[in-house]
Amino acid sequence: MHISAIITIGNEILLGSTINTNLAWLAKELALLGLPVEFSLTVKDEAKAIWQALKHAWESCDVVITTGGLGPTDDDITKREIASFFGAEMRFDAEIWANIQKNFSARNLATPEINRNQALVPEGFKSLTNLRGTAPGLFYEQGGKSFFAFAGVPLEMRHVFSTQAKPLLVAKYGSGEAIHQETLHTFGISESALAELLAGFSPLPEINLAWLPQTGRVDLRFYGRDQEKVTESANNCLKLVGDQVWGCNEDTPVSVLHNLLRKLKLTISVAESCTGGLLQKMLTDPPGASEVFLGGVVSYSNQLKQSLLRVRSETLAEHGAVSENCAQEMAAGIKNLTESSIAISITGVAGPDGGNPQKPVGTVCFGFSVFNRMWSLTQTFSGDRESIRHKAAEFALLYLIKHLQGTKI
Amino acid sequence: MHISAIITIGNEILLGSTINTNLAWLAKELALLGLPVEFSLTVKDEAKAIWQALKHAWESCDVVITTGGLGPTDDDITKREIASFFGAEMRFDAEIWANIQKNFSARNLATPEINRNQALVPEGFKSLTNLRGTAPGLFYEQGGKSFFAFAGVPLEMRHVFSTQAKPLLVAKYGSGEAIHQETLHTFGISESALAELLAGFSPLPEINLAWLPQTGRVDLRFYGRDQEKVTESANNCLKLVGDQVWGCNEDTPVSVLHNLLRKLKLTISVAESCTGGLLQKMLTDPPGASEVFLGGVVSYSNQLKQSLLRVRSETLAEHGAVSENCAQEMAAGIKNLTESSIAISITGVAGPDGGNPQKPVGTVCFGFSVFNRMWSLTQTFSGDRESIRHKAAEFALLYLIKHLQGTKI
Repeated sequence: MHISAIITIGNEILLGSTINTNLAWLAKELALLGLPVEFSLTVKDEAKAIWQALKHAWESCDVVITTGGLGPTDDDITKREIASFFGAEMRFDAEIWANIQKNFSARNLATPEINRNQALVPEGFKSLTNLRGTAPGLFYEQGGKSFFAFAGVPLEMRHVFSTQAKPLLVAKYGSGEAIHQETLHTFGISESALAELLAGFSPLPEINLAWLPQTGRVDLRFYGRDQEKVTESANNCLKLVGDQVWGCNEDTPVSVLHNLLRKLKLTISVAESCTGGLLQKMLTDPPGASEVFLGGVVSYSNQLKQSLLRVRSETLAEHGAVSENCAQEMAAGIKNLTESSIAISITGVAGPDGGNPQKPVGTVCFGFSVFNRMWSLTQTFSGDRESIRHKAAEFALLYLIKHLQGTKI
Repeated sequence: MHISAIITIGNEILLGSTINTNLAWLAKELALLGLPVEFSLTVKDEAKAIWQALKHAWESCDVVITTGGLGPTDDDITKREIASFFGAEMRFDAEIWANIQKNFSARNLATPEINRNQALVPEGFKSLTNLRGTAPGLFYEQGGKSFFAFAGVPLEMRHVFSTQAKPLLVAKYGSGEAIHQETLHTFGISESALAELLAGFSPLPEINLAWLPQTGRVDLRFYGRDQEKVTESANNCLKLVGDQVWGCNEDTPVSVLHNLLRKLKLTISVAESCTGGLLQKMLTDPPGASEVFLGGVVSYSNQLKQSLLRVRSETLAEHGAVSENCAQEMAAGIKNLTESSIAISITGVAGPDGGNPQKPVGTVCFGFSVFNRMWSLTQTFSGDRESIRHKAAEFALLYLIKHLQGTKI
């Protein structure tokens, strides 16, 4: 089996200024190529730290990848240290320099002299073209092992990995056994209650089960080298907890809902208050969203709830904006405006202020209008403003999925 | 100087299923306590890997923190390995067990037997109460060094760190010099062009400058142990690049815009197409957004652009939905509906499909209506659907900030 290591280089990660999203993205890609990540190191932009990390990773893994530190500015010392670690001299590559100049002139800019650094390549290394930025990636082979260096900007790293590093890895280690994964996404049940439902259940031998609590829901992930055993284990589990499962693997609440709406040839519209556009943003994340999503309103002010959605002033006066009555009228209003088959509305107290004993922070009312049927319900979510908004938008999606799938929740 | 190390334990991180947000959060807290993170390790839920990581970190750092692996399920072996590493026996803590049972019965649930694991504490360790979940944290001291273990769920980790670990660290290392940071956020200038503007500029001695490219903009971060020198360095830099700076430190585009709108006593509304609610979601991220944000429309379908925003059918027929003419009418429409002082509209091609040679993917038209003045402009953004949408929404905010600040961009 071949294994890999990822080294993230950058003071900004160790000062907490940047979240390392590159690790998760690369780790998933590498697992699927049969090169699972054995460990990951995050070190400073300092010569000794970079050298030690390279030494540790190169000694114990088949594939070593660094991200970060390849920019044009003075704090980017990674390339120098890599060259020194592998005992390579730097050479100036005229072709890279021409590409960098082309990149700048396409934007009607003169190329800064400082970018000449980016045309330096350690002797014996292959440079990997970066069409999304100015820092090329690097590739080096020695004794059956592979080394890659990528810029730290996620967009650039993903582009260079996908277009160039991945084909090289497939060509070289193509026979490696991938780690296969199957994930069941559950909703509406706690981790412990799920554990009780699954008491006595085990995946097949050599297959692992990971419990992954998400914000507001739990994922069950099966993984191992034998794809069939992974699938069989997931299917056995599904028999026990099927009613709690809304999707699997790469499914997101929005992708599942979109597929359902497409299949049923339905359209949807949204009226939001406390979630402020988040539900509509989620609904338009996938390409082609316009097939099923018509649009909607963020009626943050009461005035807009009345003028646009025709929520009655009596409703607001008697029940308040955070009420099932208001939610129903919001849903009816947006459905009427857009002539969609389905409408969802959300109005609640996202906090941190605005709560009261009757309607504490986290209280959220939902309105649903599906063809001629209309109903509402109230949920209370815990957490800070961000997680209450997130849980509320996701609840609306998952609730609607369960409804359209015909499962009562 | 005291330094710390963070060990993240979990197969799900190394399989790319989970993004490690705990590192960034803890790293920022530790830097401010004068205990900067020297390095970070991510390892599997395996005895040998955990042991080696503990050994490396405990030998070289004053404070060692682990996150992850403290859950009730079988894959959580961290506590056992920690006990074994420090040579401690496990003891059953009746008080913790009582707390866990209380936690479950508060939710009208019986406590699963599996949770008894969470009441085991290594001898000589202090247990740190976790009011957000069932896995307590752990604390151990030896020879002036401190060890902490936290559950991996971010909400629980943050809670246990803030309420219990932080006071212990302040009491013990309170005299440590914090790492101070000042960040300047720039907009509308590339990293290289910024580097040319700053040619010849250096921060004061012992102060570092980090270049942090974000999606669509660049941050400049100064950091070091002497707060005054950090501030002076940032101020010197500001003199050179001030026109490109829209905010500093914790400022976000939305927080800066909200403050400006509050100061000027203005309200805002939004009409979005391709960004699908993202701009309104951003505008409602901060608490108290309703003071300045009235609401808006996501007019994803052309029909809704016409019926709600009164975009003329001639405009759509002649210029298309992605046009400055349409953007202007969208802005006028939402301003009219909401009676806000300012309106922004966004309509564009977020991709991956829908582009053509005249309007390639990434083409985005913006409409601005400020009091009685109205204008539009077109920008082209690079990247995938997600980053085009993000850059477009952020551009609208930053452009408006610059306009309201009176700086021409």
